[in-house]
Amino acid sequence: MRFTSEKRLDDGVLEREFTLGEIPGTLWTPGSAAPAPLILMAHNNGLPKAEPRLVARARYTAARGYAVASIDAAGCGDRPRSAADEQARADLRRAMQAGEPVDEIFESFIGPLVEKAVPDWRTTLDALLSLPEIGGPVGYSGWTALGIRLAVAEPRIAAAGFFAGGYVPRAQREEARQVTIPLLLLLQWDDEGNPRQRALDLFDAFGTKEKTLHANLGGHTGTPWFETDDGNRFFGRHLK
Amino acid sequence: MRFTSEKRLDDGVLEREFTLGEIPGTLWTPGSAAPAPLILMAHNNGLPKAEPRLVARARYTAARGYAVASIDAAGCGDRPRSAADEQARADLRRAMQAGEPVDEIFESFIGPLVEKAVPDWRTTLDALLSLPEIGGPVGYSGWTALGIRLAVAEPRIAAAGFFAGGYVPRAQREEARQVTIPLLLLLQWDDEGNPRQRALDLFDAFGTKEKTLHANLGGHTGTPWFETDDGNRFFGRHLK
Repeated sequence: MRFTSEKRLDDGVLEREFTLGEIPGTLWTPGSAAPAPLILMAHNNGLPKAEPRLVARARYTAARGYAVASIDAAGCGDRPRSAADEQARADLRRAMQAGEPVDEIFESFIGPLVEKAVPDWRTTLDALLSLPEIGGPVGYSGWTALGIRLAVAEPRIAAAGFFAGGYVPRAQREEARQVTIPLLLLLQWDDEGNPRQRALDLFDAFGTKEKTLHANLGGHTGTPWFETDDGNRFFGRHLK
Repeated sequence: MRFTSEKRLDDGVLEREFTLGEIPGTLWTPGSAAPAPLILMAHNNGLPKAEPRLVARARYTAARGYAVASIDAAGCGDRPRSAADEQARADLRRAMQAGEPVDEIFESFIGPLVEKAVPDWRTTLDALLSLPEIGGPVGYSGWTALGIRLAVAEPRIAAAGFFAGGYVPRAQREEARQVTIPLLLLLQWDDEGNPRQRALDLFDAFGTKEKTLHANLGGHTGTPWFETDDGNRFFGRHLK
């Protein structure tokens, strides 16, 4: 793990870019000296780690005592994409905007993207946990499909907050019942891109006994900011 | 309003019993001197204000800076009941335990109970707001059907937290869309006495633009304690 730049933010948070082999990442750590619990933060469907909403959430969370890390996994964010991937992403966007069924595109594109992303996240987790400023335990926040896969594959993840969940590849819908860690599922009630009933069905399917659903009125990007505080308190109950 | 007893609790909260005409009530006020915002707390289906779960929630909330009041409204709690009311309550309990349809009993018994309770709560609100230790604004917490009726009838109520919502009389289901104050609806996912889909439909029906649903795994009395904190923070955003 090689740090390539660093910036000290106003609230004492240290924001560092790193590379780990081919994986580009960002690590936010709180100003305090004690080893912090870690939250892996991933954007739905592999959107870039530099996306402003994710960065704002990561900085805010780090200022409250967590180490937060995000990467562009293989095929995600600004990593190289195949022509087929570019085409699939364009097809998906067009179909969603047109309100057409997206299941098939989703399955053939997002399914493999999740599978390919997992090794990069686990490699990153190994490297992060070797840093003295990171103590664990480990939480996960964001992209539902990746989070389900990681929660099943990765015993070091102790609690997870998922967003949306209307479209999740079949493989992850099926393994949802194997997820046994505490969960917070965040749902936008009128999310045009995430069928509500599917998200409710997914919440129902999770195998964990400790799961909470938070739903708010509004569309995909309308999550109220107080949910960031709620998420941090959820992690506070399970990671601190 | 006549205070009939008072008790200072360990955390500085003052717990006072009062009567207001025929209405018996309890008022919890925080130890601090400044006028506190007020939360009216009512148990579902008119259960007694002395019920330990309500008392625990009221004391905890008062210790966090709120004045909290609960009454036994007409026909509720330990107030005199007609033989017909006793019979209806017994029928309702028996039908719910047997898993039989309860809509008809519910409509003929709980519907009028809500209507009769409203004037007592409004009279109490008048009296409470004349006390120097209570500053307003006013929130409401608990019994969904009564809360809907009060939120529509009573402009002084600025925010409300509702519990369950699977069975709500038709009149209140219909006026749910007239509720325009910020809402937090709390739902137990496996509440045997509150059909989940009806509670979700009710959440959908509320007219307010600022509504949040919190759902947790488990049965009617299994609400995790952290929801009390979440409720207080909800009121903190709207009453303080």
